[in-house]
This record gives sequence, C-alpha cells and structure tokens, in this order.
Amino acid sequence: MTAFVTTDLPQGAAPSLETVETPALILDSARLDRNVARLRGRLADLGVAFRPHVKTAKSLDVARRLFPEGTGPITVSTLAEAEYFASGGFTDITYAVGLAPEKIARACALVAGGVDLGVLIDSPEQADALVAHARGGEAMPGVLIEIDCDGHRGGLLPADPRLVTIADRLKAGGVSLRGVLTHAGESYACRDGIGLPEAADAERDAALEAARRLRDAGHACPVVSVGSTPTAHFARDLTGVSEVRAGVFMFFDLVMHGIGVCAIDDLALSVLATVIGHRPEKGWILIDAGWMALSRDRGTQRHPVDQGYGLVCDIEGRPFADLIVDDASQEHGIIALRAGSEATLPELAIGERVRILPNHACATGAQHEAYRIVEGRGHAVSAIWPRMRGW
Amino acid sequence: MTAFVTTDLPQGAAPSLETVETPALILDSARLDRNVARLRGRLADLGVAFRPHVKTAKSLDVARRLFPEGTGPITVSTLAEAEYFASGGFTDITYAVGLAPEKIARACALVAGGVDLGVLIDSPEQADALVAHARGGEAMPGVLIEIDCDGHRGGLLPADPRLVTIADRLKAGGVSLRGVLTHAGESYACRDGIGLPEAADAERDAALEAARRLRDAGHACPVVSVGSTPTAHFARDLTGVSEVRAGVFMFFDLVMHGIGVCAIDDLALSVLATVIGHRPEKGWILIDAGWMALSRDRGTQRHPVDQGYGLVCDIEGRPFADLIVDDASQEHGIIALRAGSEATLPELAIGERVRILPNHACATGAQHEAYRIVEGRGHAVSAIWPRMRGW
Repeated sequence: MTAFVTTDLPQGAAPSLETVETPALILDSARLDRNVARLRGRLADLGVAFRPHVKTAKSLDVARRLFPEGTGPITVSTLAEAEYFASGGFTDITYAVGLAPEKIARACALVAGGVDLGVLIDSPEQADALVAHARGGEAMPGVLIEIDCDGHRGGLLPADPRLVTIADRLKAGGVSLRGVLTHAGESYACRDGIGLPEAADAERDAALEAARRLRDAGHACPVVSVGSTPTAHFARDLTGVSEVRAGVFMFFDLVMHGIGVCAIDDLALSVLATVIGHRPEKGWILIDAGWMALSRDRGTQRHPVDQGYGLVCDIEGRPFADLIVDDASQEHGIIALRAGSEATLPELAIGERVRILPNHACATGAQHEAYRIVEGRGHAVSAIWPRMRGW
Repeated sequence: MTAFVTTDLPQGAAPSLETVETPALILDSARLDRNVARLRGRLADLGVAFRPHVKTAKSLDVARRLFPEGTGPITVSTLAEAEYFASGGFTDITYAVGLAPEKIARACALVAGGVDLGVLIDSPEQADALVAHARGGEAMPGVLIEIDCDGHRGGLLPADPRLVTIADRLKAGGVSLRGVLTHAGESYACRDGIGLPEAADAERDAALEAARRLRDAGHACPVVSVGSTPTAHFARDLTGVSEVRAGVFMFFDLVMHGIGVCAIDDLALSVLATVIGHRPEKGWILIDAGWMALSRDRGTQRHPVDQGYGLVCDIEGRPFADLIVDDASQEHGIIALRAGSEATLPELAIGERVRILPNHACATGAQHEAYRIVEGRGHAVSAIWPRMRGW
C-alpha cells in the first residue's frame, strides 16, 4: 500500500512548476478548498449531512481538507480505500459498491478494527450471505439497500417487493438495516445544468419512496442517502434525506463543466507536461503526457464541446483558446486547435510547459502516485500528497 | 517505486481464481511464452535483432521471460522504466519517446550508472540541448533520430534536411549518433491483417531512406530500428534493418485481434471479476470490475466488432458468445450481450467469477499493481509479479 505520509518539501529546495519531473499531477489547494466550502455550505443550508466520496481523491491529505475537524463520515468505492482511510482515523465509512459475498469477511475485519461500516446490497442473495456470515458471531457491518432512481446502473426500484424481503431477512438474521442509498448516475447526461434540479428531485423521491415502503413494513430506515456531484449542486429541497454523497466536486473536471456544474476556473486538478516536438504542417505540438498520464477517459466525447483528452493551458492554468489534446498514445500527447477553430496555434518551444485540464478527475488522478500541491497561480510546489490505489 | 521482487506463493496457501480478491489482473504465463516464442522465431528468421518494448509489461518478471539469457536489449517509454529495468540488470536500453531537454541530466545519470542508453530526438533544438550538456564533460547517451514513416505522430520525414543538420550538430558537439528509429503507428488502423505487409514495407523503407541520406552525408548509421506489433508480425523482408521493437505482442489484446495479428486464444492478459448483481429486465449483469480495473480504453470502438470495455469469458478464459462489458463506472461493470445478438445471456449467479479480455493490454495492465500468474486453463495462481509505474 502506498505510504500516506505527506511530504512537505523543505523551503530551500523550492520545487516549482518549472522544475518538477513531467508529466506530473498538479492540485491547486486553493481551488480544492473553495470547491469544498461551496458544497459544504450548500448542504448545510439544505439541512443534510455530508458524506463525501473519497474515490476521486484516494488521499488522506485531501480527505482532511474536507472536514473542519480533520475527519468525518466518508464514502468509499473499494475495501482497500476503507482500510487506508481507517488507518488514517476515518472510522465512519460507507462502502458504496454492491457487496460481493466473498468480501464479507474483509468487511467484518474492518468492523472488528473499530470502523462504523455500511455496506450496500440490492438482492436477497446478498442478504442471505450476510446473515449466513453473522451466524459465526462476528460483528457485522450495517446494511444499506441500493435504490435505482434513474435506470442508470444497479439497485431496486422503490416499488420492488424485494426491498421488504431483504429487510425482513436481515432483521430475522440479526443484521442491522441502516437505510437506503441511491445515486443519480444519469444526471451526467444533462447539459448546461438543464434537468439537474429535476434529477435531484427524482433522486430524492426514489429514496424517500423506498424509505416509506420499508417503514410501512415495520423497518426503521434512519439513513436516506442520495448523491452525485451534479444533483448535490442543484438540489433545491432535500426534506427527508439524511445525507448527501459526492466526490468529483472536490476537483471538478471538464465533464462537470460541460454538464454545467462548475466554471473552468473551478477545476483544481491538472497534468503538467513538457513540449517535446512540433509538426507545424499538421498543426501539432507534441507533449510528454499521453494517456498514461491523462487516462483514456473521453468523457466529453459526446458533449457539445468535445475536449479531446483535455484542455490545454499555460503553466499557470489559463486555457489557451480552443487548444486541446487531440490524440494520445501511451507517453505522447498531440496538441492541436479544436476542429473549425479560427484561433492561432500558440508558439510553444521544446521544453516549455503546459497544463492539461482533464475530462474526468477520478480517472486522471488514478494514473498518478501523488499530487504536487500548488496554490492558485503560484508556481511553487509546496507539498507532495500521496494517493493510494488497488483493491 | 513498487518493489520488483517476485512473490512466489507457498504451496500450502494455494490461491486460485476462485479465491483471489477481485478485480484482479491475471496473466497466463503459457500464452505469454508462446507469444514471445512466436515473435522471437519470426524475427530470427528475418535476420534482425529483437528489442522488445517493456512499456506494456512494466515488470522484471515478464522481461526475464523475453530472453533465453534472462536479459537483453529493451525499449522503454519513461526514464522511470529505464531506472527500474536497469536495477534489474537490463543495461542495453532505448528510451523511445522524444527527449525533453529537462530529462537529459537524468539520462546521463543512467549512463553514469552503467546503462548503454539510447535517446530519441527529431529536432535541432534537442540536438543543441544535448551538445550543451555534453560540454560539462558527463558521459552522454547515444542518439537515435526519430523518423516519421506514416504521418502518425512525431519524427522527421526521411527527406527533411534537418535530419543531416541534427547529425552534423551532434558530431560537432561530440555526441554519438547511433542511427534512426521509426514506429508504424498508423498500422493500428488496419483490419484483418489487410495492409499490414505494406505498412511493414513502408516502415522499413522510411528508415532505410533516412539511413541512406545520413550515410551519404558522411554519418555512420549502424542502428536502423523499426517496429510496432502489427508490422513486426507481417514484415516479409527486413534487409537493412538492424532491430525490431514491439511490446503489446507479449500479451496481445482485442485491438490486436481486431487488426488481425492474433487469435482470441493468444490473449494472455485478463481481468478477473465477481458478479455482484443483475438487472434482468435490462439484460444486464453487474460485476465489480469498472474502468478503474479495465481502464477507459475503448480501442475497439471503431472496429467492425466493438468489444465495449472487454470480452467476457468464463473463469477459465473461454469467451461467452457475444458477451461484452457494455458500460463501466469507476468500480462497476455492466455486462450485456452485444447489440443485435441472438445469443442468450448466460446465467451467472452473484459471487460467480468471470474474466474480461481487454481492448488494450498496455492500458488495462497499467491499472493494476501486479499480475496474478496462471498457466493455461489452470485455476491455481502460482505467483504474483509486481508492476512498476510513474515517471
């Protein structure tokens, strides 16, 4: 497991955007803090608890910036994340991916280690597997039932009778049901914010309907958990919801910008790269950041504005007009003007540095071992925050 | 840097495809050996040296399987790879990505450490940067000039006068020119093998033409380096070429299968995943391998047969009919039949395991920290071979 000890760089060494090895993952901590404050404030106004998703950041250093107290309730996408964050003092964790029965023992080990763990299921088979394991006497995680609010992925429709079946089997088996959880994955198909308030309403309504049916059947359902970054930023009324989850908002990205959730200047994550060549007859500039550094995510491919593999900026993160990473191989990126643009290809000499804003912060971050921290337009790299990975 | 010590698993522990944590990267060492033997034999018959690209594998364990003697000449895509493989006894290395001037010092450190290093340039600016560094008296790497054979990416056209300009400047500056290097990146656009022999000829001809021009201008050009997996497997005559590079052939993948270079049963790399849910009304099976485990590579998106995020097989790697990973989020995969298929969705229970053949082995491998090794249809996992990453 990658060490999670922050490396604060000594004052004298003064690494900067001009000197760090490229490609490098750059995180603007000022923008991170602003993005976090914006959503925390919004959710506080809506009267709901905040359970951020750490799958985007996979970093204890980032997670500590999410909470005034330094820790708080989190959502994870793997048990490896849960173990990592638990080791850093985060003990209120929801593992929000449908539970494979083979993972129950590892989940129980986390509980034994002091983690208040919630797991997610959407089938009677998974409930039976938990109940079977519980007979062994181990302390069990709590259970959330996954609800499908928009047809995007897994979960039960609120009216599905298996909802109550699952709750009944858990209760009979002595396994605690905590509540319901849903995720408005289809909200990513919205553009320019259109439809997002409605998607947030639908997400809430599905979770509330499921909770109502469980309560009508005699089951307590204290947790009503909703969330995606888009719906979290556009929800108008979350009465009845107990908590909101969101992850990519910490950094934002071009997909979120295209959906209409943020401004370009909110994007906190970028990849620093060096110019290594030119093909002027083709309108190309070559850089040393390929898909290994950017990821293969083409999340804006079907957006009105296709950002290729990322939007190209100067070393301080100011976008050039219409300049994108148009193609990528493993360690080469090809920069070009967007098709049809009347802008001018900038003159960037071999050795000059650019920053690439990513389509999908979760995917691009995952390609790197650590963040290099800058603040705003500053060039100084003040720290290295490691990331974890794996399962 | 990830440790490169192989972990051979004790006999008693007997991990297997049924028990390893999922998602997991599975490498069939029998197929790896067969793929290596096939290309080694082919290139020996063609009378050229073999300089495999280790960017696909990023593993000393895999690299040792490439050479009867355990080491040999290799190609790398990052200086971090060069350092890792050098630490494992590989001392004949070509760093085949256009050299950023800031990387010269690190390249020289490798040379000082005993590595016979070749670097790649395609501009007079890069030549000048090397010459400037050489004045400091350090031992310098040798230089290869990158040639563009098919318009795919970087490099000089063989007739470009800068070819000789670069050679002249290196010679005047006391930096050694080794030769020319080219890569037929456009060969990946071929289908069913059509056009590949011609692409191999064009690749060779461009390199030979560049070598001829350099020699006519009084420069020795001992190295004439060509290579991509497709052209390496379809070249008919490599007279005048000194070495061939190729990387993905070790594992092959669905892109290579779609191009017509290999059979499905040649694919050595797969991702093991567990079924976590069903949406039968949608024809979906959900698994715990999302894009974090598979990568976002959609390399077959424009192929006649689009393989989604990968072809789904049983636990022993036998493909189901028309079954693909149709969509993926970070930690969820959605399996479905290919659109228009008349095949039947298999019955796969929660907890059952499948294997996913990847679009692009280089991209999928990079998402994992290590390979779990199996042989053929065997279920036993006999070893863990770590991978390195980073820059």
